[in-house]
Amino acid sequence: MKIQLALDRMGIADAIQLTREVEDSIDWIEVGTSLIKEFGVASIQQLKQAFLKKIIVADIKTIDNARYEFEICFKAGADVATVMGVSPIVTIDACMEVAKRYDKKVMIDLLNTSAEQKQALLKYKDAIFCDHVSKDEQEEKGRQNDGTKGCTLFDDPSIQLAVAGGITLDSIDRLSKTLNPAVVIIGSAITKADNPAEAAAKFKQMSLQLHPGGL
Amino acid sequence: MKIQLALDRMGIADAIQLTREVEDSIDWIEVGTSLIKEFGVASIQQLKQAFLKKIIVADIKTIDNARYEFEICFKAGADVATVMGVSPIVTIDACMEVAKRYDKKVMIDLLNTSAEQKQALLKYKDAIFCDHVSKDEQEEKGRQNDGTKGCTLFDDPSIQLAVAGGITLDSIDRLSKTLNPAVVIIGSAITKADNPAEAAAKFKQMSLQLHPGGL
Repeated sequence: MKIQLALDRMGIADAIQLTREVEDSIDWIEVGTSLIKEFGVASIQQLKQAFLKKIIVADIKTIDNARYEFEICFKAGADVATVMGVSPIVTIDACMEVAKRYDKKVMIDLLNTSAEQKQALLKYKDAIFCDHVSKDEQEEKGRQNDGTKGCTLFDDPSIQLAVAGGITLDSIDRLSKTLNPAVVIIGSAITKADNPAEAAAKFKQMSLQLHPGGL
Repeated sequence: MKIQLALDRMGIADAIQLTREVEDSIDWIEVGTSLIKEFGVASIQQLKQAFLKKIIVADIKTIDNARYEFEICFKAGADVATVMGVSPIVTIDACMEVAKRYDKKVMIDLLNTSAEQKQALLKYKDAIFCDHVSKDEQEEKGRQNDGTKGCTLFDDPSIQLAVAGGITLDSIDRLSKTLNPAVVIIGSAITKADNPAEAAAKFKQMSLQLHPGGL
């Protein structure tokens, strides 16, 4: 199980500084949507330059203009870029094509997808699927990703699954048992911790116990 | 009927230069999603600074993190910001609340919404609804917005409707008759024209004939 550190609602320099404090304990670095929309692709470039050996996930949340957006992400150094599962299928097709050409990965964000949409997305065998309780659902509704299976999608062992949404040290154990994710995306439980390095180390330790293999 | 010029897939300086050439014929300026994702909120700030008297639409395509994204848009000078209709309802609620607080407008992008979703969105009486055939649907599938009514939403005369998606001088007449939009969003038919100023002037002339009132 990989730990993906989600960096959001901060400046690029702070994101780099914070990542340095925790880099030994995390596997993937997510350049959050807020960094991309606030500072542009420079955010991806600078995080990649600072952490050349890490996998960089550009959470660009593409929903149109797929070829253009995915190309700017991969040219900026991203290894993975995200597309919304609620997009028109042509958009996801284009993301898959660009990623294949660049030998990179697509993460399909399942936020607010219907059961039918999830089922239709199963054809993208090379994608990583992100089961996602959004920031707004957390902050406005008090929800968090508690590992409830929303779809039979998650019963297919060949699916590479990422999980996101208010995940804490308390919830990761249950999540892991029900969803068996390859990637666990952690934001504020590390970035807002009193001691981010200590928090990240605990997540790392738990991830190694729970799911030593994976991506 | 207002003409909204959509600026996409270009640098900020080119976007400003192109807008100067056509500013007499257009009403609203859309800072396209590609400008925001490539260059950040600086794209909104610089377009607003260059055209202080124009309405600036930030096509940020929010689907989460609504308060944060809408605040950075409005602080950067946007008068309208966009949210995806396929978002969780809490996200759209938050956009409406922030816009009201800033005395600004929300444009709800109906891309890929189901009939049920469109119906549920009708409660947002203060929003502008954007009937949108996406770039990917145009470029990968050859579709364009031909004015087909996708929903009874468009029969409600109190709805402020915008239309987007490959609109040309040939299609605007039909579109106008069936959908009666308050805002027509034009991208490449102006930005890629041999003579953008001439193309924009033709759209303006037509819009005045077709629908002199509106927003």
